[in-house]
Amino acid sequence: MAKRPGEFELIAELFAPLAASYPGALDLKDDAALIETPAGQYLVATTDTLVSGVHFLPDDPPDSVARKLLRVNLSDLAAKGARPTVYLLALSMPESIDMTWLRAFAAGLAADQKEFGIALAGGDTTSTPGPLTLTVTALGEIGQGKEIRRSGARVGDSVFVSGTLGDAALALKALKGELGGLGEADRAALIARYRLPQPRLALGQALVGIATACCDVSDGLIADLGHICAASAVGAEVAAGHLPLSPAARAALGGNPDLIASIAAGGDDYELVFTAPPRRAAEVRARADDAGVAVTEIGRCVAERGVTLLDAERRPISLVAGGWRHF
Amino acid sequence: MAKRPGEFELIAELFAPLAASYPGALDLKDDAALIETPAGQYLVATTDTLVSGVHFLPDDPPDSVARKLLRVNLSDLAAKGARPTVYLLALSMPESIDMTWLRAFAAGLAADQKEFGIALAGGDTTSTPGPLTLTVTALGEIGQGKEIRRSGARVGDSVFVSGTLGDAALALKALKGELGGLGEADRAALIARYRLPQPRLALGQALVGIATACCDVSDGLIADLGHICAASAVGAEVAAGHLPLSPAARAALGGNPDLIASIAAGGDDYELVFTAPPRRAAEVRARADDAGVAVTEIGRCVAERGVTLLDAERRPISLVAGGWRHF
Repeated sequence: MAKRPGEFELIAELFAPLAASYPGALDLKDDAALIETPAGQYLVATTDTLVSGVHFLPDDPPDSVARKLLRVNLSDLAAKGARPTVYLLALSMPESIDMTWLRAFAAGLAADQKEFGIALAGGDTTSTPGPLTLTVTALGEIGQGKEIRRSGARVGDSVFVSGTLGDAALALKALKGELGGLGEADRAALIARYRLPQPRLALGQALVGIATACCDVSDGLIADLGHICAASAVGAEVAAGHLPLSPAARAALGGNPDLIASIAAGGDDYELVFTAPPRRAAEVRARADDAGVAVTEIGRCVAERGVTLLDAERRPISLVAGGWRHF
Repeated sequence: MAKRPGEFELIAELFAPLAASYPGALDLKDDAALIETPAGQYLVATTDTLVSGVHFLPDDPPDSVARKLLRVNLSDLAAKGARPTVYLLALSMPESIDMTWLRAFAAGLAADQKEFGIALAGGDTTSTPGPLTLTVTALGEIGQGKEIRRSGARVGDSVFVSGTLGDAALALKALKGELGGLGEADRAALIARYRLPQPRLALGQALVGIATACCDVSDGLIADLGHICAASAVGAEVAAGHLPLSPAARAALGGNPDLIASIAAGGDDYELVFTAPPRRAAEVRARADDAGVAVTEIGRCVAERGVTLLDAERRPISLVAGGWRHF
């Protein structure tokens, strides 16, 4: 176990290199960061916390914890159509977090900074008698008036979702030993999706000017589509049979059809759910193709409020709760 | 005990009202906030975490915890000369935090929003099996090139500090029962300063164009002046006899002269320590007067590196550590 040095040494060794590419970070040696936003752009800001034992498992690999921490925040920027620029990082660390852990964590941040073209602009480190608690505030840019809000969905709009749904919820079940009969490859595929979500940044930016509303799927498809509906004063019907599933989720569902509720209500997918007029469906698909991600039309906005999941005979499927809630 | 409702109800009742005055907060119903920075201005960003039992005491009044949380962040903006605009708030709450506590906490935020002209722009709430952990990311504005950095101090510059030093460190000793022989009024005065620091925003803004370097005193005078010196490649000599003391700190010091080390090295004062050319001292005083805060000249920047605390005979006073470190 490599003992942890003091705060300043920690910042100098691990975090200052992550800020080196961003002059406004002032090498993390100042009280605050200086951020320049081009004229005509909004700065887009979001913050999300991950707590060990709540949002990730204590023995999850540190680099994947780092990348998930960044990605859940980037996913919020993706939902607005924004381009991420920098982030601030606050770590509250128990004594058990040593330099070996932190070096792997910083390596994960570095890998994702490279992947997403972002830099660390500032932060805070402190000790805690509790579990590791990590907060990122991610900042991005979008042309003023170009942002995709949750409130623009209209009755008749088609509902789309990117990628596949339910993998993270099923992974959590698998990790807890609640999902039997799954092959090793399928199990590994689900866990990889849970640990390393893909923020749909290219898709979000491609949807500017075409999506009428957008939200990332963090609380679960039904809950997050519900957020769009509430903000837009519409409802939505979703066809359970149209939900896009990974081969692993399809295998799990084959063994237990009731898992469809977990898939529709489970959180942590970090896909985008969005709405657009049906006449623009082909354009949506073309833009998604360009962004390198599949999108699936799963339903439609209706006048009657609420989100309804329908089976093949258009009968509502009951869901245990309104999604995935952390408390 | 008023049971805590779900995340969305909590946000709607307690936090959305704190965001109502800021359109870019999108009523806290969206994935991210939209922040407009005027042309020619930097957005200034800082983040700080407070952990219950580490940075405040579990039985501290919730409204003072809220205000301290905001103020430690605003203090960082003050050190840059920036004007605060909005903040993001991430709360990780144990089950023991109930609605009574949270309502008082939100009232504290509301009071300080009014005092400092800021609004809540976004946030995150989550549960934790550990202690209450609160992270604020504060955002402000400053004209590009106007910001006061830590790196501008020059040999021969005078060193100034605002307000009084050591009150917070002495309060912590008093609260822990390590400070005997203090009258009740003095004790209460120290504790009030510990619980409710005064971010020196007006002073920071008044120092733009005159201070060559500035830092807020969060780690302790010696450590934070050390940050200025390190960033500016200078050293500093500070006269212990010139450190500005409150009547309560003066009373405590009268009973135990060794406390001067705690006063010089103790953290959490949230005053500003800054440098300026001696020929501008009168102007510094005039601007501080206008900002409604006293400033005291306590020393001078020298070529020899490091910060030295000198007694009346100019002999160095030994300090236990390089300031106040959280770990």
